[in-house]
Amino acid sequence: MNSKTNPDNFFEDFRLGQEIRHATPRTVTVGDVALYNALFGGRFAVQSSDAFAQATGYPRAPIDDLLVFHIVFGKTVPDISLNAVANLGYADCRFLKAVYPGDTLNAVSEVIGLRENSNRKSGIVYVRSRGFNQRGEAVLDYARWVMVRKRDESAPSPGDTVPDLPKAVDASLLGAACPPIKADAYDLTLSGSQHRFGDYQVGEKIDHVDGMTVEEAEHMIATRLYQNTAKVHFNQFAQSKDRFGKRLIYGGHVISLARALSFNGLGNAFHVAAINGGRHVAPLFAGLTVFAWSEVLAKADIPGRSDVGALRLRTVATKDRPCPDFPYKSGDDYEPEVILDLDYWVLMVK
Amino acid sequence: MNSKTNPDNFFEDFRLGQEIRHATPRTVTVGDVALYNALFGGRFAVQSSDAFAQATGYPRAPIDDLLVFHIVFGKTVPDISLNAVANLGYADCRFLKAVYPGDTLNAVSEVIGLRENSNRKSGIVYVRSRGFNQRGEAVLDYARWVMVRKRDESAPSPGDTVPDLPKAVDASLLGAACPPIKADAYDLTLSGSQHRFGDYQVGEKIDHVDGMTVEEAEHMIATRLYQNTAKVHFNQFAQSKDRFGKRLIYGGHVISLARALSFNGLGNAFHVAAINGGRHVAPLFAGLTVFAWSEVLAKADIPGRSDVGALRLRTVATKDRPCPDFPYKSGDDYEPEVILDLDYWVLMVK
Amino acid sequence: MNSKTNPDNFFEDFRLGQEIRHATPRTVTVGDVALYNALFGGRFAVQSSDAFAQATGYPRAPIDDLLVFHIVFGKTVPDISLNAVANLGYADCRFLKAVYPGDTLNAVSEVIGLRENSNRKSGIVYVRSRGFNQRGEAVLDYARWVMVRKRDESAPSPGDTVPDLPKAVDASLLGAACPPIKADAYDLTLSGSQHRFGDYQVGEKIDHVDGMTVEEAEHMIATRLYQNTAKVHFNQFAQSKDRFGKRLIYGGHVISLARALSFNGLGNAFHVAAINGGRHVAPLFAGLTVFAWSEVLAKADIPGRSDVGALRLRTVATKDRPCPDFPYKSGDDYEPEVILDLDYWVLMVK
Repeated sequence: MNSKTNPDNFFEDFRLGQEIRHATPRTVTVGDVALYNALFGGRFAVQSSDAFAQATGYPRAPIDDLLVFHIVFGKTVPDISLNAVANLGYADCRFLKAVYPGDTLNAVSEVIGLRENSNRKSGIVYVRSRGFNQRGEAVLDYARWVMVRKRDESAPSPGDTVPDLPKAVDASLLGAACPPIKADAYDLTLSGSQHRFGDYQVGEKIDHVDGMTVEEAEHMIATRLYQNTAKVHFNQFAQSKDRFGKRLIYGGHVISLARALSFNGLGNAFHVAAINGGRHVAPLFAGLTVFAWSEVLAKADIPGRSDVGALRLRTVATKDRPCPDFPYKSGDDYEPEVILDLDYWVLMVK
Repeated sequence: MNSKTNPDNFFEDFRLGQEIRHATPRTVTVGDVALYNALFGGRFAVQSSDAFAQATGYPRAPIDDLLVFHIVFGKTVPDISLNAVANLGYADCRFLKAVYPGDTLNAVSEVIGLRENSNRKSGIVYVRSRGFNQRGEAVLDYARWVMVRKRDESAPSPGDTVPDLPKAVDASLLGAACPPIKADAYDLTLSGSQHRFGDYQVGEKIDHVDGMTVEEAEHMIATRLYQNTAKVHFNQFAQSKDRFGKRLIYGGHVISLARALSFNGLGNAFHVAAINGGRHVAPLFAGLTVFAWSEVLAKADIPGRSDVGALRLRTVATKDRPCPDFPYKSGDDYEPEVILDLDYWVLMVK
Repeated sequence: MNSKTNPDNFFEDFRLGQEIRHATPRTVTVGDVALYNALFGGRFAVQSSDAFAQATGYPRAPIDDLLVFHIVFGKTVPDISLNAVANLGYADCRFLKAVYPGDTLNAVSEVIGLRENSNRKSGIVYVRSRGFNQRGEAVLDYARWVMVRKRDESAPSPGDTVPDLPKAVDASLLGAACPPIKADAYDLTLSGSQHRFGDYQVGEKIDHVDGMTVEEAEHMIATRLYQNTAKVHFNQFAQSKDRFGKRLIYGGHVISLARALSFNGLGNAFHVAAINGGRHVAPLFAGLTVFAWSEVLAKADIPGRSDVGALRLRTVATKDRPCPDFPYKSGDDYEPEVILDLDYWVLMVK
């Protein structure tokens, strides 16, 4: 017991409506961009090229949406999920403002739900977390819920509220982080895909073909880049005594890999506008190879915008299983190789 | 078969004279420089220090020549060599303009030769690729040829032309990417070597002494940094079924390692001005240690320049074999540990 | 024997009072910062956030003190310690001026002591090394001593002088690299710790709780980032024949890991002002997990400053041993898992 170290919040320490300002503010730079590119191999032209971004309407290449997500998420870990048994889900995640090199991000969370589990050993904490830039402008807003242990099983539950969260972000709320795109200056040869918004059909499935093997050094470098301190990713000495015997790879690493792989088939899906929901179906470990496929769940126009449209995608990632047959569920259960089931909105030029 | 993913050009898909503009434009930053330094350990002072570069005549430290090469090369992979059986060679590669942090690179290739192999299962595609900056200025120009599979063995050959490529770049064509160097401000103590152009002799051999072991994470991080998507470098699941059972390391990784090792003996060879030819003699795998040695093949003055001279070098890299005895060929065959035979021009202060 | 490669100084090559200007000058950038963060996971707010740094009195986020140390140290390796048998110690290390992205560092060493070992096979070389920025301002000053082999056992000893080095840097000499801190703008929520200078007691011990496993790729990437060329870190082919059979991890890697881990318990110790002494008690190898704990050895006011105070800390790092029981020595000997014993001053807001 040391009073100077992180106090490690347990389930009974949370209060409904509690606001938590998180440490540590973080300036995002072209150094972070280079490292993120090198870890995932992203090729979306808007994020890759200042010249392309400027031609299409951005002041310069914006920071990858998921890098913003991971940094904001990382800030919440010491306060919210250091004692998490499991990261249960995300919902209602919207990207609200583009982030550029030099911007400084910080994060604030509000406890929006608390429900004790029937075994009274743990409970579910629902938080809404928001990322802000150095001008106090919100850049990201999302809900997530985690199962958190109780310190003392006999402690009373701090609440019994489950928030009402949307199944999907409404299309009318998309696009805040995307400036008006000059569609005629958006060069489909440079972007690497000839397929515009109109070329995708609801129900269409796309195998992203390529596979990417993950090394221990890679996922740890990535996760530290986000200042995410969750212990299970870094400490082989402790993990060797755990049920898997291995370091667990941060679930966000799989999201970023799947997003990078999805370039092959979705090359003009240049912006993740919202995440409707996400489930880390099974853990990933170093040495395994990640594949992905996507299905177009819906298409939507964004009110008042003719430059871009929104595709609602389900992207499924697998481990050590190529996806030409679009592996997903077998009955109610996921196929054993499925590790991620992500439901999100991307923007694409019309 | 999915029409949205990369179409994967096969031999019969190429046409003589065809021009291919490649995706994805890429802004190069100090973040890329840091990562490149950290992966290879380069110590050439011009690239390492803005202050040194400015004192010697550059506006600031230029991007390492080989990093420029790898990025431009990477852009060509999805269109040219995704179905390559083998990367056969390079020739006539010239660095035409210095690249600085903030510049955006893109690439265009022209098909300059096509010859079907006698087995009709594949053919050799010769391309001339050029890298451009955001102002449309050529920064790099090189030819390479790759063996590419046919989709359909019965398809007619798309051509039967072998281009005439020079054995070496003429010295009069060197130096376009190197500003006038203030040789008296070029500090030989800071640069780490007391040896100028005049101190090297044709025929001189230099063992670069040090060895560098390569890890899987390192070569994958490097190759993704270049947005090079060649599948064999990243996908252990697929490679485990291949004849080697392992991921192949991008040949350019060996070139960069050999260049970095060559600092020990060639510390003032601050600029790679041209690559006359290169052969990846054998594959490299993670866990092996790379060594290198060089021979001075020729020396040349550059017309109109008294600041710098050009050394034509052969740099040979080996795996798990130190090079005090300059391992190269035994009869017509390379020694089994040789992995790279590179013929190139460097500039050095007079 | 090749006259072009690094001459590899041996013990008898050094002279008392000799001044050695080291290669290679190095511009430090936000790219280096990103990579350093990603390798160690630092969370000190001043170094992480331009906005936080500016609010507290810095013009922008300074480069991490230890990154400055490693870069300056790295420059000295080719001249001082390439033939080192062992890196014996550091003393009297002071950080003199903050370093910012864009600054270029170079290093100069003076030989301040020489003493031959009784076996006449080696000797101890004491150097004082200084790091300078591009304006010639000293940013770092430290003494270290290394055991260096003799080329020729029969060569006479080049000297017999042991310098008088302080056991600890005097508190009156601390703080040169720290601008006046606006303590009321130093946000303890954003910084991640509520504990100020006044909250720490001499004799207090803090277990930093978390563990970090090190991979080969990570320590090699870090050590190359510093352009540190010590062979034992990189060359598995040679090391496999050595007594450990493995690459040795640069001792400075352990210092940086311990410093990053120490955030959990010392979150407001935002600046390393001086290193009084350091001992690498045992080697670290890839695959092992590093833990750390600290003891407050002393507290001091800095003359003329009411914004910050100085804590003298002993930070001990271990391998594969958590530190709730503060493992250190058993009698005169270190516990077998202890790898680092570091005595240093940090500054903390009052």
